[in-house]
Amino acid sequence: MNPTIALEEIYAPIESAIQAIPDVTLGILATPNPLAQEVIQYFFSEQGKLLRPALTLFGAEIVRQNKGPGAVSPDKSNLMRLAAAFEIFHAATLVHDDIVDSAYLRRNLPTVNVRWGPQIAVLVGDYLHVRAVEAFFETKSEKIAARFMETAGAVCDGEIRELREKYNLNLTQADYFDILGKKTASLLSCCIEAGAILAEGSPEEAGALGRYGRYFGLAFQIVDDCLDFTGEEHEFGKTLGADYTAGVLTLPLIRLLEIARPRDRETVIAAFKSNKELSKFQMILELIREYQTVPYALAQARAFSAKARAELSLFSDSPAKRSLDRLLDYVLERNR
Amino acid sequence: MNPTIALEEIYAPIESAIQAIPDVTLGILATPNPLAQEVIQYFFSEQGKLLRPALTLFGAEIVRQNKGPGAVSPDKSNLMRLAAAFEIFHAATLVHDDIVDSAYLRRNLPTVNVRWGPQIAVLVGDYLHVRAVEAFFETKSEKIAARFMETAGAVCDGEIRELREKYNLNLTQADYFDILGKKTASLLSCCIEAGAILAEGSPEEAGALGRYGRYFGLAFQIVDDCLDFTGEEHEFGKTLGADYTAGVLTLPLIRLLEIARPRDRETVIAAFKSNKELSKFQMILELIREYQTVPYALAQARAFSAKARAELSLFSDSPAKRSLDRLLDYVLERNR
Repeated sequence: MNPTIALEEIYAPIESAIQAIPDVTLGILATPNPLAQEVIQYFFSEQGKLLRPALTLFGAEIVRQNKGPGAVSPDKSNLMRLAAAFEIFHAATLVHDDIVDSAYLRRNLPTVNVRWGPQIAVLVGDYLHVRAVEAFFETKSEKIAARFMETAGAVCDGEIRELREKYNLNLTQADYFDILGKKTASLLSCCIEAGAILAEGSPEEAGALGRYGRYFGLAFQIVDDCLDFTGEEHEFGKTLGADYTAGVLTLPLIRLLEIARPRDRETVIAAFKSNKELSKFQMILELIREYQTVPYALAQARAFSAKARAELSLFSDSPAKRSLDRLLDYVLERNR
Repeated sequence: MNPTIALEEIYAPIESAIQAIPDVTLGILATPNPLAQEVIQYFFSEQGKLLRPALTLFGAEIVRQNKGPGAVSPDKSNLMRLAAAFEIFHAATLVHDDIVDSAYLRRNLPTVNVRWGPQIAVLVGDYLHVRAVEAFFETKSEKIAARFMETAGAVCDGEIRELREKYNLNLTQADYFDILGKKTASLLSCCIEAGAILAEGSPEEAGALGRYGRYFGLAFQIVDDCLDFTGEEHEFGKTLGADYTAGVLTLPLIRLLEIARPRDRETVIAAFKSNKELSKFQMILELIREYQTVPYALAQARAFSAKARAELSLFSDSPAKRSLDRLLDYVLERNR
């Protein structure tokens, strides 16, 4: 099933800017190093959803539209660089994550780790990281740079935490949400808030958008974690069951362990401990269906989505506001 | 053999500051994440030579002493943070390098990669990187931050280049020096120049020290590469033959390939292509001894050391200047 809402439509108010992001990204990353260039071209040959730069552009746009007619737009090239920097930082984390998770597919392509090996993946990830940081620095906004650094620290922290909790069958929902908040939501929150700061939004505007991004991020990651169980691989563009195989507990499984009858719980635990077998994954899938824990998780995602929506009430009606509103529906309906 | 020059003596003019670096470093890296904290404590439990923070402190000190009596010192805590940031950035590259090189030992301890696996090594390296960058930002010097970013990019570039050239038996000395300049010398140059900038040295002073750092770095890395063949493992603190085993060609081997008789050259090439066997390493060592390519490489190191020394002529005599002078001898004599 395709989502009923197309991302292209949602992006309409920032259409020309978002279309230019891939070129700006490659411009920032240009290097005379042929191997680095090859890996970068490969990685960015399949664009993702560009959610992070889109949030940055929307953050700037909703603030501009909220100021009413005559509002001055932020410097265009600075805004584009900022938006691209988030995409590059995100790419850096993906390239490193795919080593950490031993993932095979990313955007329907073999991961850098699979194609070039972990050494190149480590170093190219580092290079992307350096270039992203440099681009943040070049916005000349101390506030944005500081906000980004804090976020980058939180992302690492969340990822290390996630790794540490692998195979921890006692992981609670609170632990899970703490990890999600750090590894995913913190960055999405930073993206939109930084856009608002660059457009000289008030602290209230930036704060509301930062919270929007945080709730949006939590909803987004819960849905992502559900897709690991229920997605269609060719649409999702990632290996299914990747979290499960890597020993990462996500909400559908945490909930299953909470509510399953003792015998089923034992089955899950035994399967999880020998989780390299595909047949075991099928068994887990059946239990997840029986106990309806994906709908349970999606209900939590909907609740966060509603909280995100409430943060938009500060803003007067505008195309950007409507897009940010619809983005919340998209995230719940998406299948990739 | 122990070096005749002790690093402690050379560090005397910056003694109290360099002794405080480990604590400042751990302070910057403090995190409530228990696993990250554990890895960080482990990694920094064995201090390295603290060369990078020492160069930063000397850069500031030689500039201060050059200004003569009454010169104002740079803000102490800012200088310490800057010096520690270089050590942290260096640590980040080491943790990632040890994944790339599959090295077993670092500072006489099993590497993070060996002890915790590549996943943790990737993420903790990223965390160190983020914290280092943050500390550079906090110096509030745009010049230093920009200089650092440029350097961090060069370091990645050099490392990717080195990886790409593995097993390239046609690697020239020019290629080798280009890689060294980027992966090692650029950072050492940045360390001392940043110290000079923070102490408000003139562009001439900062420039001369930057060049000192660059030549120093080239000499340092050549010696390091020689120690990979001739060092004593327990003194060197790293696995011997690590470059060789990883397929990295360094000066003694490049020179050997240049000058060896055809039959010996074939032996080297055949051995290098099946370089996992220790007996082959012994054979290479014998040829390196026969053709005297380590003394050849060390002569190049001495030449760079002399160039570095010449850059100090801009400065009036002072304890810091004498230390920077002696550091050049130390580097040539060191065995770890």
